[in-house]
Amino acid sequence: MSGHEQRVAFSTELKQRRQNLLNDLPPDTVVLLRGASLVTRSNDTEYPFRQTSDFYYLTGINEPDAWLLMVSGKKPREYLFVLPRDAEQEVWHGRRLGTEQAGLISGIRQVYELNELNRKVLNALGQHRQLAWSFKVDSAQGQHRQRWLDKLAASRNLTTPGTLIDLDPLIHELRLFKSDYEIKLMRESAKIAVQAHRRAMSMCQPGRYEYQIAADIHHEFATQGTAGPAYGTICGSGENACILHYTENTSRLQEGDLLLIDAGCEYQGYASDITRTFPVGGRFSAAQKRMYSWVLKAQQAAIEHIKPGNTLPQAYKIAAKILTEGLIDLGVLSGSVSENMKSVAYRPYFMHGLGHWLGLDVHDVGAYKVNGEPRPLEPGMVLTIEPGLYIPPGTQCNELYQGVGVRIEDDILVTAQGHENLTRGVPVEIEDIEHLMQPGSFT
Amino acid sequence: MSGHEQRVAFSTELKQRRQNLLNDLPPDTVVLLRGASLVTRSNDTEYPFRQTSDFYYLTGINEPDAWLLMVSGKKPREYLFVLPRDAEQEVWHGRRLGTEQAGLISGIRQVYELNELNRKVLNALGQHRQLAWSFKVDSAQGQHRQRWLDKLAASRNLTTPGTLIDLDPLIHELRLFKSDYEIKLMRESAKIAVQAHRRAMSMCQPGRYEYQIAADIHHEFATQGTAGPAYGTICGSGENACILHYTENTSRLQEGDLLLIDAGCEYQGYASDITRTFPVGGRFSAAQKRMYSWVLKAQQAAIEHIKPGNTLPQAYKIAAKILTEGLIDLGVLSGSVSENMKSVAYRPYFMHGLGHWLGLDVHDVGAYKVNGEPRPLEPGMVLTIEPGLYIPPGTQCNELYQGVGVRIEDDILVTAQGHENLTRGVPVEIEDIEHLMQPGSFT
Amino acid sequence: MSGHEQRVAFSTELKQRRQNLLNDLPPDTVVLLRGASLVTRSNDTEYPFRQTSDFYYLTGINEPDAWLLMVSGKKPREYLFVLPRDAEQEVWHGRRLGTEQAGLISGIRQVYELNELNRKVLNALGQHRQLAWSFKVDSAQGQHRQRWLDKLAASRNLTTPGTLIDLDPLIHELRLFKSDYEIKLMRESAKIAVQAHRRAMSMCQPGRYEYQIAADIHHEFATQGTAGPAYGTICGSGENACILHYTENTSRLQEGDLLLIDAGCEYQGYASDITRTFPVGGRFSAAQKRMYSWVLKAQQAAIEHIKPGNTLPQAYKIAAKILTEGLIDLGVLSGSVSENMKSVAYRPYFMHGLGHWLGLDVHDVGAYKVNGEPRPLEPGMVLTIEPGLYIPPGTQCNELYQGVGVRIEDDILVTAQGHENLTRGVPVEIEDIEHLMQPGSFT
Amino acid sequence: MSGHEQRVAFSTELKQRRQNLLNDLPPDTVVLLRGASLVTRSNDTEYPFRQTSDFYYLTGINEPDAWLLMVSGKKPREYLFVLPRDAEQEVWHGRRLGTEQAGLISGIRQVYELNELNRKVLNALGQHRQLAWSFKVDSAQGQHRQRWLDKLAASRNLTTPGTLIDLDPLIHELRLFKSDYEIKLMRESAKIAVQAHRRAMSMCQPGRYEYQIAADIHHEFATQGTAGPAYGTICGSGENACILHYTENTSRLQEGDLLLIDAGCEYQGYASDITRTFPVGGRFSAAQKRMYSWVLKAQQAAIEHIKPGNTLPQAYKIAAKILTEGLIDLGVLSGSVSENMKSVAYRPYFMHGLGHWLGLDVHDVGAYKVNGEPRPLEPGMVLTIEPGLYIPPGTQCNELYQGVGVRIEDDILVTAQGHENLTRGVPVEIEDIEHLMQPGSFT
Repeated sequence: MSGHEQRVAFSTELKQRRQNLLNDLPPDTVVLLRGASLVTRSNDTEYPFRQTSDFYYLTGINEPDAWLLMVSGKKPREYLFVLPRDAEQEVWHGRRLGTEQAGLISGIRQVYELNELNRKVLNALGQHRQLAWSFKVDSAQGQHRQRWLDKLAASRNLTTPGTLIDLDPLIHELRLFKSDYEIKLMRESAKIAVQAHRRAMSMCQPGRYEYQIAADIHHEFATQGTAGPAYGTICGSGENACILHYTENTSRLQEGDLLLIDAGCEYQGYASDITRTFPVGGRFSAAQKRMYSWVLKAQQAAIEHIKPGNTLPQAYKIAAKILTEGLIDLGVLSGSVSENMKSVAYRPYFMHGLGHWLGLDVHDVGAYKVNGEPRPLEPGMVLTIEPGLYIPPGTQCNELYQGVGVRIEDDILVTAQGHENLTRGVPVEIEDIEHLMQPGSFT
Repeated sequence: MSGHEQRVAFSTELKQRRQNLLNDLPPDTVVLLRGASLVTRSNDTEYPFRQTSDFYYLTGINEPDAWLLMVSGKKPREYLFVLPRDAEQEVWHGRRLGTEQAGLISGIRQVYELNELNRKVLNALGQHRQLAWSFKVDSAQGQHRQRWLDKLAASRNLTTPGTLIDLDPLIHELRLFKSDYEIKLMRESAKIAVQAHRRAMSMCQPGRYEYQIAADIHHEFATQGTAGPAYGTICGSGENACILHYTENTSRLQEGDLLLIDAGCEYQGYASDITRTFPVGGRFSAAQKRMYSWVLKAQQAAIEHIKPGNTLPQAYKIAAKILTEGLIDLGVLSGSVSENMKSVAYRPYFMHGLGHWLGLDVHDVGAYKVNGEPRPLEPGMVLTIEPGLYIPPGTQCNELYQGVGVRIEDDILVTAQGHENLTRGVPVEIEDIEHLMQPGSFT
Repeated sequence: MSGHEQRVAFSTELKQRRQNLLNDLPPDTVVLLRGASLVTRSNDTEYPFRQTSDFYYLTGINEPDAWLLMVSGKKPREYLFVLPRDAEQEVWHGRRLGTEQAGLISGIRQVYELNELNRKVLNALGQHRQLAWSFKVDSAQGQHRQRWLDKLAASRNLTTPGTLIDLDPLIHELRLFKSDYEIKLMRESAKIAVQAHRRAMSMCQPGRYEYQIAADIHHEFATQGTAGPAYGTICGSGENACILHYTENTSRLQEGDLLLIDAGCEYQGYASDITRTFPVGGRFSAAQKRMYSWVLKAQQAAIEHIKPGNTLPQAYKIAAKILTEGLIDLGVLSGSVSENMKSVAYRPYFMHGLGHWLGLDVHDVGAYKVNGEPRPLEPGMVLTIEPGLYIPPGTQCNELYQGVGVRIEDDILVTAQGHENLTRGVPVEIEDIEHLMQPGSFT
Repeated sequence: MSGHEQRVAFSTELKQRRQNLLNDLPPDTVVLLRGASLVTRSNDTEYPFRQTSDFYYLTGINEPDAWLLMVSGKKPREYLFVLPRDAEQEVWHGRRLGTEQAGLISGIRQVYELNELNRKVLNALGQHRQLAWSFKVDSAQGQHRQRWLDKLAASRNLTTPGTLIDLDPLIHELRLFKSDYEIKLMRESAKIAVQAHRRAMSMCQPGRYEYQIAADIHHEFATQGTAGPAYGTICGSGENACILHYTENTSRLQEGDLLLIDAGCEYQGYASDITRTFPVGGRFSAAQKRMYSWVLKAQQAAIEHIKPGNTLPQAYKIAAKILTEGLIDLGVLSGSVSENMKSVAYRPYFMHGLGHWLGLDVHDVGAYKVNGEPRPLEPGMVLTIEPGLYIPPGTQCNELYQGVGVRIEDDILVTAQGHENLTRGVPVEIEDIEHLMQPGSFT
């Protein structure tokens, strides 16, 4: 596709998303959504801008301080508000989209500069009695809102909303089901993350520091044009692998240790999320092989279960059972599998969930239960499958397993036929890993 | 120095800083300072933690949610409050320092877990009538404070503070003067940034994207163990160089264009800040040489002026005069230098300041004026010198200069004898740049 | 009725009101309403407690800090939360109802002490997705609410409300229609106000101060067991009558002046609202008679129009036309009545509305328009009818009319047959007033 | 004094007060003080306006929303900000002082309309580094303040305050010492309260309701031109007298019971505060006489102790000892006086303090301790002396004393020679009370 075709495809997609949302609302409901602002890092410097996922999902606008205003009904209306173009401001603070370009991106015809916001919002609110906005609100946004409601209340000619509807669950339900357009982007995000993991494996050697491996991964992410890591990259060698959110990455890699890498990028807004665990020196020891194989077996079995109609808790149970077998095999647990399953004895060694939704957020939105029951998987959902085993130092077992952590994670798209593993490109089989880690194998 | 010696040196330095601060306060004044918290990036992911510079300056603690409490006077007291160690929490959220390690780092003897904070603060406040804290306060912190003041007001046995003192200007005046310890770290920060800029120059070639050059720089920063860029890296080729805070870095490098890179790293908290402008293809055109030379001449003359007793506005005037000569030479301005200086005619083409303090923040703290007058430079101050010329497209002049931006920036330490250029390692002379950009020159 | 019977009648009435409200809501909606708190007057003294009208309307509870929680549906639930009984606190701060007595008054079975509030609210909210509360919220209440919503959002096992409904317009629509029970109380409130106005008329004489007349009125209100004036009593003599909310009442009464008294009491929560204008010295002058008669004629004609199906704006037009005739007669306006009506020429001399709803608030709640149209009057509505003429000093007319203000106001109940004037007991006819003002007439 | 002389005397007094305050502050300190706003009672009606005591003390301005701005130093400056005059607004909301009259009252030359406030405050703050304001702040005021500080911080040309000083304790120390001017007003306030108590005594008879007695008192207060009661009037008959803040006043007076009245007025801002206890039927029983006499003896002895150099806790001890003797005499306590004093056995029957400062607030401001020690009394202080005995129902003693409460309270001015009882005009001796209560005695 040409750049122009791509842009048209994107704005068409965005229009559809907004239409879907409006269809979920009663007619004559005002919809009000605010994008993110810049966040201070220190003194007068800011963190790189991150649009809120919901705002990006509906508008495609990646610029601070924008607002979206819509009205549902037979003749739905859409308004977008963005920072004004301003030659002097832009020299100092960077280029702005302006109303014209924002209109092209979003496919919204009525785009205004921000100073029109108050008037348009009050006008829309004053004519309709239902209002949908996010029930989660930061204080800056809350002040805006309160001022509007106060103005409405003070005006004799305008009505005030009598019903408020939480926008979040409605948008999140939409986001749970990825369109073809989104799936393409998620495949690309996965592909870049795959390449970065392969590079990390090939660059790994004793004496380097964890943060240097992370640097290689991030360099790959950045060179490929992504916005960088989708979450704090974890490079945990040795015992560090047992800390689930180890992001300091300050240790030196030791021959004989395993290195657990949990990293993914954010491409066009979409996250990938891959974990691999492999030997620093390129060769698994016998003990490492034994433990690793159990986790791999659990992961493969769980992935196998991902298809329409099945549920995530079912896959969890399958994985947990295999991990329990593994823990008995490794001498960490004793007794029968069924007893150990009943007592949830594996929990101290597999303390996290099996996986999570994936999309614009790495822990993506969308309800896991419907009416109190786990929801059946459906085509278009994307989720991670990431079982792990973590044997804390001091555990009663062969000391070769103590302080060892293994996790394997892939990104799985639910399809009509079953599933598609978006991240199969990073080796998981022991021989494949050892092969890739040999000098000269990586391309 | 060994790791242990380094740690001792650091905590000795920190003790001295706190003592300096307490000496600036009336006796029996309570000092209360809060560190930073984690900041949400999207949904449940956070930006990398950045301690506030003031808190780090006084405690060396690089962990969220810590507080410092001190009391000035003959027998000064110091208390530090940190998150409690908690095995389960740390598996999930990463390792914490705990009171013991926090005490070793900061050199503070009385380190408590955060749940002691309320009691200790109320106790200290209730016994003293003067309180020094930051007059700038975020809402979370404000709630803490208000609760304490309310509790004091409600208690009949405790006094409430009758005088509040703003801590910020006191700490900032201290931070303006870098100790030998700090200068070592700033030299190291500069050195890493120098290396990254040299690599960027050598990796530059037509067809690559600006963000890929930035990726190389960041990779260098990360591989060398820094916290990454100290501010949003600017890689602006062609007209993009005229946007002062161009951080999108999305354009493709074109043969014949100049590339302006403004980038520095944050090493052990300390920022470096270098700008270089060089030809994408490795060779300056005649027009580029002519324009570049004026900026370089202005920068060198301004740097020459940096020594104790002189002021930054004096150096600004020197640079502005040379840039005015240059603008006349380039045909952008006409008339005499003195007339143009009087009418500040250079302003549209050199619209920013000459430089700024540098330290824990890239735009470091410290007053630029004392009693309304520009302050004389003193040994231990570190500042940038960064003149530039930016000829907007459409300017009335030879079109070869239109849409061209040039800036050259170095980090200058004021010494007893004059100054030291911490970033001289990146070439600025035209022939040196062209030499480094030849294939094989970079090491 | 005995005290017991009265109490039963009241709690039966309250139950009916709550049932009416729940019937107006979708099933499974949580209703949350907070009563008033004490308000500081100065330092540690407080104004006399006034319950919010909405809370009193639904619960009958006249004590600070109470909350009402209900759930609509087939099996509606009601919970009341009140301050706990506490012997020591009550010695210091006065008696409290306690749960038992609060239950008897309100007819609510499940009455809890306030410390149960959080648990019960979270429990109710966590099980239902619709929540009705007031969209007008003070900051103290807002903090409570935010804390609940935050707790729900943080809990994985509880749902958060997805729809919020504004309680105010629903309660206000109910309050607009007075029940037989309420009409009895409003008759009593009117009767006491009538007596106070009669006493004021009879006590009026040159040389006394306006505030002393107000004192007599308030003494009557208090002696009869009301909560005092329902709003700031207006006793405006001479030009003061032209200030609509003149409540200073500091002038001395002058022979020859008119005195305008606008005063009503609050009896069992219900307001009365009467205005009379009469001569300080007991005898109207010819000019006063002339002007007064026009206002009286306008008021009588407007009252005549009050019956089911007619509207308040219609009555306004009738009164405005008569007042316009009057203004022409008095020489303030010239030209024809129809021309003056068209140009709204009377507006500077009759600048307020004709009347307002009356009930638990003096300016009682309830929409004046439905679907943008003035609503037809219906039996059970109570409203004031209060035309006036105010000729500012300096107006182009006979100086005898300059600085004179006249207003006559009665409280009118709409009945099936037409209306009932609740405050006819205070004379309005000139001769009746003059008769009552003769010494010895008042009883 | 003529009205004009009075006004001059008042503004002279106010100037002196402001000068005293500025003298207590370091030079070049900005002083910022806000007056009260109107407070909602219900819907759109408000409680009668009450200026904050501190603002009235310094400005004499009795109107909502005013601000005072001063700068200390050799050439002190004073600015007052008031609501603008506005013919239309005043017709609707009542007359306003306007700048001219506000200047005459306060003696401040530079009086501005409120819309000048921001500019003047920012100007003053931006030039001085010390700022004195109240550390107690309501949210509305806090928003103003924060906006100013934010604007200062954002401005490069203005300084921000580096030191904040709490204004409250400084003003309160001044207010503790009454000037001759204030003493005159307090005598007048006391005189009116005396008259009201005498009227209440004479109007008391079985069958009336407590609130009717209160109505008589309030009628007297209002007729005499005061702002009404200075605090919630307490009329407690029988057991109600044991509830210290019994303000419901709903019981019917019973022959044989005592009636405790605690009431005072607010005259020109100054509070009086008198308590008397007397027999409903006009005659003390033998038991009532016995109990009453002990309280009277304690009060007289405590008053006797009030003179410069003595302290309030000393007087408390004298009263407590006599009350202890009394409790032994009444059979409530047994054992020796000294034992009972040691164990503070009287506390359940005399649970409040002996008295409090009196002035613009009924519980007036000013520290009771200095450097942790009770402060010696000094001429110009005014305080109440109000011992009491309250025997709860069910106490182990003669049942004639059960459920009986007695308190006697007078307002005492400390003079150079000793003291002056400002409220001696209401009888306290048994025979004097009985005499006044005989029909026809009251005049």
